[in-house]
Amino acid sequence: MNALGASGETKPSAELVALMAAVGQRARAAAHVLARTPSETKRAALKAAARALRAGAPTILEANRRDMASAEAAKLGAALLDRLMLDPKRLEAAIVGIEEVAALPDPVGRVLASWTRPNGLRIERVTVPIGVIGIIYEARPNVTADAGSLCVMAGNAAILRGGSDSFESSKAIVAALGDGLAEAGLPRAAVQLVPTVERAAVGLLLRMEKEVDLIVPRGGRSLIERVQAESRIPVLAHLDGLCHVYVHQAAQLEMARAILLNSKMRRTGVCNAAETLLVDKAMLPALGDLLAPLFEAGCEIRGDQGTQSVDRRVKPATAADWDTEFLDAIIAVKLVSGLDEAIAHINLHGSHHTDTIVTEDQGAAMRFLDEVDSGVVLHNASTQFNDGGQFGMGAEIGISTSKLHARGPVGIEQLTTYKYKVHGSGQLRP
Amino acid sequence: MNALGASGETKPSAELVALMAAVGQRARAAAHVLARTPSETKRAALKAAARALRAGAPTILEANRRDMASAEAAKLGAALLDRLMLDPKRLEAAIVGIEEVAALPDPVGRVLASWTRPNGLRIERVTVPIGVIGIIYEARPNVTADAGSLCVMAGNAAILRGGSDSFESSKAIVAALGDGLAEAGLPRAAVQLVPTVERAAVGLLLRMEKEVDLIVPRGGRSLIERVQAESRIPVLAHLDGLCHVYVHQAAQLEMARAILLNSKMRRTGVCNAAETLLVDKAMLPALGDLLAPLFEAGCEIRGDQGTQSVDRRVKPATAADWDTEFLDAIIAVKLVSGLDEAIAHINLHGSHHTDTIVTEDQGAAMRFLDEVDSGVVLHNASTQFNDGGQFGMGAEIGISTSKLHARGPVGIEQLTTYKYKVHGSGQLRP
Repeated sequence: MNALGASGETKPSAELVALMAAVGQRARAAAHVLARTPSETKRAALKAAARALRAGAPTILEANRRDMASAEAAKLGAALLDRLMLDPKRLEAAIVGIEEVAALPDPVGRVLASWTRPNGLRIERVTVPIGVIGIIYEARPNVTADAGSLCVMAGNAAILRGGSDSFESSKAIVAALGDGLAEAGLPRAAVQLVPTVERAAVGLLLRMEKEVDLIVPRGGRSLIERVQAESRIPVLAHLDGLCHVYVHQAAQLEMARAILLNSKMRRTGVCNAAETLLVDKAMLPALGDLLAPLFEAGCEIRGDQGTQSVDRRVKPATAADWDTEFLDAIIAVKLVSGLDEAIAHINLHGSHHTDTIVTEDQGAAMRFLDEVDSGVVLHNASTQFNDGGQFGMGAEIGISTSKLHARGPVGIEQLTTYKYKVHGSGQLRP
Repeated sequence: MNALGASGETKPSAELVALMAAVGQRARAAAHVLARTPSETKRAALKAAARALRAGAPTILEANRRDMASAEAAKLGAALLDRLMLDPKRLEAAIVGIEEVAALPDPVGRVLASWTRPNGLRIERVTVPIGVIGIIYEARPNVTADAGSLCVMAGNAAILRGGSDSFESSKAIVAALGDGLAEAGLPRAAVQLVPTVERAAVGLLLRMEKEVDLIVPRGGRSLIERVQAESRIPVLAHLDGLCHVYVHQAAQLEMARAILLNSKMRRTGVCNAAETLLVDKAMLPALGDLLAPLFEAGCEIRGDQGTQSVDRRVKPATAADWDTEFLDAIIAVKLVSGLDEAIAHINLHGSHHTDTIVTEDQGAAMRFLDEVDSGVVLHNASTQFNDGGQFGMGAEIGISTSKLHARGPVGIEQLTTYKYKVHGSGQLRP
C-alpha cells in the first residue's frame, strides 16, 4: 500500500506538478533515443549497469539499512521487513538478473507477419517498444533493478515508483543503473525513480497520458483498483493471485495430494500460490487423505460444512474466505457438485490469474482449460509454474491479470507493441 | 458528440443504474455462451441475422426515416445527415457485410505458440474471445451491424451505444440481429443496444469493470478523451486521424502529386484522409506543381509563409491548423528543413494513426518508418490504404489509435485475446 496509500493525498503543489512534468518529458525524450538504440548498445549499457551496481554495493546496502531502520521504527510487519531487506546475496542475485536480461534476444524489430497485396503493397507487422512505462510497486527493492533492466532491453524508458519504505534503496539502485547507462552513452533518464515519496505524485503520474504509454501496477487489490479508477493511461495490472486447485472426481489421489501441497506450500507469499481448494463431493471419502499433507506442513484449513466433517482441525470458512488472497499458510476448501460448479466458482471468485485441475478425465480437463477465464490454466500441474522463468521466457516484470495486451508472465516480449510498415511504389487507393 | 455529450449529464437515477446493471449481466452471461459456441453455429446465426435484416428492411428504413425527421428538425449539418441516412442500397451493403463476416475464419482457438519444457510441461498460447465489448460511436447506423456481427463471430458479446440521433435505426437493426441469433439458438443478449438515449448511461457503462472487458470508442478527440478519463475499463481508442503526407526532397514529383491528391481528396471525411502536408524546403521550386491538383480538385490550402509565397490562393495557416482534423477538403501545408523536422512535427501533432513519406531515398524512408510513432506508416503509398479491407483482413470495427493490444485496422482477430493452457502429468515446481 505504500506506493499509493488509499488516503491522505493532498492537492499537488505547483512544485510537484512541475517536478513530475519534467520527469515525464525526460522519459519521453529518453524513450525516443532508446527506441533507436541498437541491441549491442543496450546490452553494453546493462552490463555497465551491473558493474556499477557491484561497485556501488556498499552504498546501496547502506541505503537499505536506512530504509530498514525507518521501517523497523514504523513497526512494519516481519513479512514486509523481509521483502524490504537487501543483503549482499540478494543484491548479487538482482545484478545477475540484469546480466541475464542483457543476454536475452532483443524483442524489438521482429517481423511478426509480412504479406504482399495484389496491388504490390508489402505490409509488415513489426515489433516496436511501447515507449514510456510507469511501474508502481510495493516494498521489494529488487523490482527496481528487474523492471528497469527489462524496460531498457525492450527499448522503453521506465518511470519507477516503489514503495516509500524502499525509497533510499531504490534511489541508490537507480543511481547505479544510471551510471551504467551513461557509460554506454544512453540517457540516465531511461530509468528514473519518482524523486519524491509524496503520494500526490502517483495521482499526477496516472494523468500523464502524453508522456506515459503504459502503467504497470504490481500489488494488492486496493492498489490495482485505485490505479484502474484513476489512470487515464492503459493499465497492465499485476494483481495478486487468487488461484484455485480443483480436484475432480477422476483425479489420481497421490497426484492431487502432491499438486495441492506444492501449489499451496512451496511458497505461500507469492501470487501463484493456491488460496482455494475445490473438491468434487464424490471425492469426500478421500478428502482426509488429500488434506493430510497440508496439516503436516502447518497449513490452516478453513472449510465448508462438508470439509469440517472430515477433520476436527478444519476451521469454518466464512463467505469472505472465497474472495481472500491469504498469501500465507491458510487455504479455503469447498466441496462442489462437479465441473460446472467449479468453473463457475473460479470465474466468480478468482482473480483470473492461475487455476489448475487435477483429473485423469481428458474431457473434463479440456472443458476446464477452455472455460476458466484466467491468464494461465493448467491440467495436472502446480499453480506455481505460472512464472516467466518456468515458462522459459526469461526474466519477468510479473504476472499480468489484465485481459488485454498480455496475460500471464510479462517478460521482455510483452514490453513491446507493434506497428505496420507499408512499402509501396506509388500505389493509390481506387 | 451525440454518443457522449460533453455536458448536461445528470446523476443517474436508480432505475437507470438497475437498467444498465441488467444489460451488463445479460452481456456477461451471453459472452460465456458465445465463448463456447462452435464456428458453425456462429456462422449460422449471422446468416440468419442477415435474413432477418432483409425481411425487416421496411421496418428499419421506416425507423431511419423517423431518425432523419428528428435530425432535420434539430437542424443537423448535411454531413451528419448523410452519415445518418439509410436507404435500401446502404442497408443491403451492411447486410452483405454481415454475410462476409460469417465467412471469415474463426479467430478463436488458434494456437499462437506451443512448446514443451524440459520437465515435460506442454505450454500452449491459444486465442480466446475478449468477453464483453462496449462500443461507443456516433451517428452512422451501419456500425451497429458491422460491430455487432464482428463481435459475435469472435465469440464476444457486444453492448452498443450509438449516437442518440440514430437510436431508432439502431434499435430496429439490433432487433433483427437478435432474431437471427435466437433462430440459431444463441442468446439475443449477445448484441444489445443501450436501451436509452440518457447520457448518464455512458458514464455507468464506463464503470462496469466487472461486466465489460473492453471499451471501443469511435469518434473525435473530445469523445475519446472523455472516455479515457472516465473509463475504468481498458480502452481501444478509434480516434479520427490527423494523418500526414511528407514529401521528402528525394521524392519523385509525379508520384508525390498523385499520392498527395489521393491521400487528401479520394474521400475527405474518413479517418485515413491526410490533413497536413509537410514538404522539404528543397522542394520549394516544385511546390506549385505539387499543389496544383489539389486546387483543381477544390481543396482549400492553408500554408505557412513559404507556402503562401508560391500561390496567392494559399490562405495563411494558423497554429491551430497543425492540430486540426479537417475531415473536409482543406489541407494545412508546412515547409520543413528535412526528415528530422518532419518526424518531430508528426510525432508532436499527429494522432498516431497513419503517415506516409514520398521519397526515392531508401535510407530516409527507413528512418521515417522506424521513427514515426504511428500505428501505420507508409512509404510511397496513399494514407487511405489504412483499412482492414485494403490490408486483406476483411471487415473491421475501425482503426485503432491506441498503442496497446491492437494498432491499425481492428478486424476479427483483434477482437480476441489469448490465454496459456498448460498440460502436465503431475509436475511439481522445485
